[in-house]
Amino acid sequence: MRFKATVYVSLKRGYSDPEGETTARALRGLGYSVSGVRVSKVYEVELEAESREEAERLVDEMCRRLLTNPTKDDYRFEIRERG
Amino acid sequence: MRFKATVYVSLKRGYSDPEGETTARALRGLGYSVSGVRVSKVYEVELEAESREEAERLVDEMCRRLLTNPTKDDYRFEIRERG
Repeated sequence: MRFKATVYVSLKRGYSDPEGETTARALRGLGYSVSGVRVSKVYEVELEAESREEAERLVDEMCRRLLTNPTKDDYRFEIRERG
Repeated sequence: MRFKATVYVSLKRGYSDPEGETTARALRGLGYSVSGVRVSKVYEVELEAESREEAERLVDEMCRRLLTNPTKDDYRFEIRERG
């Protein structure tokens, strides 16, 4: 079965976000009243699995092994079956 | 008034996504049956505006001026008022 997982990866609170800080500074430089920017990432992963349960297990494993840094990132994901 | 905008930026269809391709290759290298990965970005922007309408106008402008590359990116955003 084919699945599509949408994985949202964001920095845990307390971790500084250099890209977000640079973006906020650039927006203020353009004249916008911006007090902060946080940047996170979304991975859309197309995968094969035997069942939805297996797909969930595999995606959680991918997150821990490759897609996130468990020390500083939080993640969540949604999975849907593809036609 | 204070608002928080969540801006989703993704590559338009047809544009190659080197980071996604590298990620897919790395996942296959780890043994996963992955046929493709697309990576997109989410900006959470805290801003001041006179009204929700002004906040929407400002965020759309930020997207076109700084947060996206209109040639190759699609974007959408949600805005909510903050306490």
